[in-house]
Parts: sequence; structure tokens; C-alpha cells
Amino acid sequence: MLDRLQSVELAKSYLLLNHGPVVLVSSAFHGRRNVMAASWVMPLDFDPPKVAIVVDGRSYTRELIEASGEFALSLPCRRMADKVLAAGSVSGREADKFVFTGLTTFAASQIGSPLVRDCVAWLECSVIQEKHNQQRYDLFIAEVVAAWADPAVFSGGRWHFPDTARRTIHYQAGGSFFETGRAFECATE
Amino acid sequence: MLDRLQSVELAKSYLLLNHGPVVLVSSAFHGRRNVMAASWVMPLDFDPPKVAIVVDGRSYTRELIEASGEFALSLPCRRMADKVLAAGSVSGREADKFVFTGLTTFAASQIGSPLVRDCVAWLECSVIQEKHNQQRYDLFIAEVVAAWADPAVFSGGRWHFPDTARRTIHYQAGGSFFETGRAFECATE
Repeated sequence: MLDRLQSVELAKSYLLLNHGPVVLVSSAFHGRRNVMAASWVMPLDFDPPKVAIVVDGRSYTRELIEASGEFALSLPCRRMADKVLAAGSVSGREADKFVFTGLTTFAASQIGSPLVRDCVAWLECSVIQEKHNQQRYDLFIAEVVAAWADPAVFSGGRWHFPDTARRTIHYQAGGSFFETGRAFECATE
Repeated sequence: MLDRLQSVELAKSYLLLNHGPVVLVSSAFHGRRNVMAASWVMPLDFDPPKVAIVVDGRSYTRELIEASGEFALSLPCRRMADKVLAAGSVSGREADKFVFTGLTTFAASQIGSPLVRDCVAWLECSVIQEKHNQQRYDLFIAEVVAAWADPAVFSGGRWHFPDTARRTIHYQAGGSFFETGRAFECATE
């Protein structure tokens, strides 16, 4: 699968998250795995690239991330929104979330967490241990160790959505999303 | 000005940032003030509400935030995008950014940082001192102490953009933005 994707230069990987899309967070440890939806994620640095993400202390994903020290971010698109909502609606303790949502996976290049198929971009992340942030704020800081994109949707450091179905999405609340909308340019004076 | 805005319930203030829009960060200390643009910001908690934001260690805004312990986030809209780009293009050390950008302000309710006029939502933030995060990651954590919205654009806990001009915006890079796009609903099974 990875051979059909574009490897995104690490120092440019922040561009995948800069516009604030919702992500799927996947994790695995010793044969157990899970996926959850998250909006509270942002780039934290350019090079080496880092991300910050909030992962609830009671979640199954949290348990797997703490055990493995890794997670993957997959950027879902418009056509997958129902599965994103489903991934955010139950706990992986109650059901196999991949079976529940119908989301399928492929192997990452640098980490054991799976990447979610049919998404449009992916970031492989290795946790930087910051116990105080994790315990007090449910906040994880991680280094991005590999990044990938569907070249039909992101290339040359820019998004260029070919159709509505493959637009990234932004979560509001209560099952309500926004599509990433029209691109426009401004020029500095 | 505030009497024409809707006070947003603090526990719902994360809804203003959930979809990942670009923000204007304003700060003030002893008669000096500044404004910068930021995409690396996210909600961190619901109640009491917190946000996390990256503020470069060399920026004038950083100096004012560290001195005052406060900052305001204003959510600009499509019609202001050129000013947002301008606010992100020079340092407040080189020029009065409000004069340079043409952005004007009004007084906040709980903090000394000014709020930016013509925006569509605002969060007043009080820094929670976390020196390690600030020094190592340029990462600030703050409590949201008041939140406001233009009722024509956000009310009842939902965005309902009346026109393109007042849509929030998302930054890509190099002067390229996205509008917040079409809203759509999904239902859980």
C-alpha cells in the first residue's frame, strides 16, 4: 500500500494538520489494537516535526499508546465521515472498533500502529515521554517519524482536493461536520 | 461592543475551536500590545475550559504573554483574510501590527488583552504557568475565562455561517487558506 502513496518530507508534514482537520488515531500493542476520532490535535514543531494531541485518560487508545509509545494519525475524508463518527461513538473496550466501524488498515513503515485505509494522509508518531502533561492534561507530545499522503489529494506541499468525496473534514459536535471548503490565496503587501 | 455579542457558556467554548480555524492572538502589557496569527491552537479541556497554543520563543507576542499572563484569541473570517496574512508576516517589534494590518480592537471583559474587531468569536485566556512546556516546546496552556460570539454566526452551540464573508478560515501555507466549507450531518447507527 505504501508504495502507492507519496512520502511527505518530514519538515513539511505539519502541512497535513495545519488546517485543523479531524483525525483517526490508531494504536496497537501485543495484538490488541484500536482506533478513535480526535479533533484536539495540532502541529507542535517543524523539524524535527512534533504533534500535540489530547487522549482521554479512560480511553482504550490511551492504554495502548502508553503501552506501545506510538500512535498513527490518519486523515479521513468526506466519504468516510459516518465511520469517523462511529469511531468516536463507542469504546474499543466494548467492541472491536475496526469491525464496528468497517475501517480497515495497512501497515505503517516505522511504527506498529496500523494506518487506516481510504484516508488521504497519515502521520506515524513516536511519543515523547512527558508524564506531567499526560497525567495532568491528557496531553501527549510525539515526534512525527514518517508521513504519507495520497498524491491525488496532497502533493508538492499543498492540498488540491480533486472532488468532494476526498475532502478532509472538521468536526463540530453532535454528528455535525464541515468539509474543508474552497481554497483561496492572499498576497502580502 | 460586548453587549452586542453572545456570551458563550464556558463549558461550550471548545466548540469555537473544534473545527480547527486560524486565530488572531492578541496580547498587551503596560501600554504595549500586539497581534499575531496562529494555526497551532486547540482545545485542551471542557470544564474548566482550557486551550493549548504554540507561541514562538522569539516573538513579541511571547514577550507580552509572559509578562501579562494573558492572551485573547479572536476568530477572523473570510473577509479579513488579507489582514490575517499581514499579521503573520511581520514582527510587532518592527511595526505596530494594528497600524500595519488595519486591525482594530475592543476591550475584553476579564483580561487586559484586546479583542479584534470584525472577528466572529473570541476567547479570553489566562495562562496556566507550565514553564517546562513553554521553554522546551513553545507550548502555552491557558484557561478560557470568557468566550463570545457574533450571534449571526454562532449561537445555540453551533456555527451557522450566514454568508461566505463571515465564514471562519483555515491556513494552509504561503498565503493560501481554506474557507470553512459546507456543513453536513452524520447519524450514529
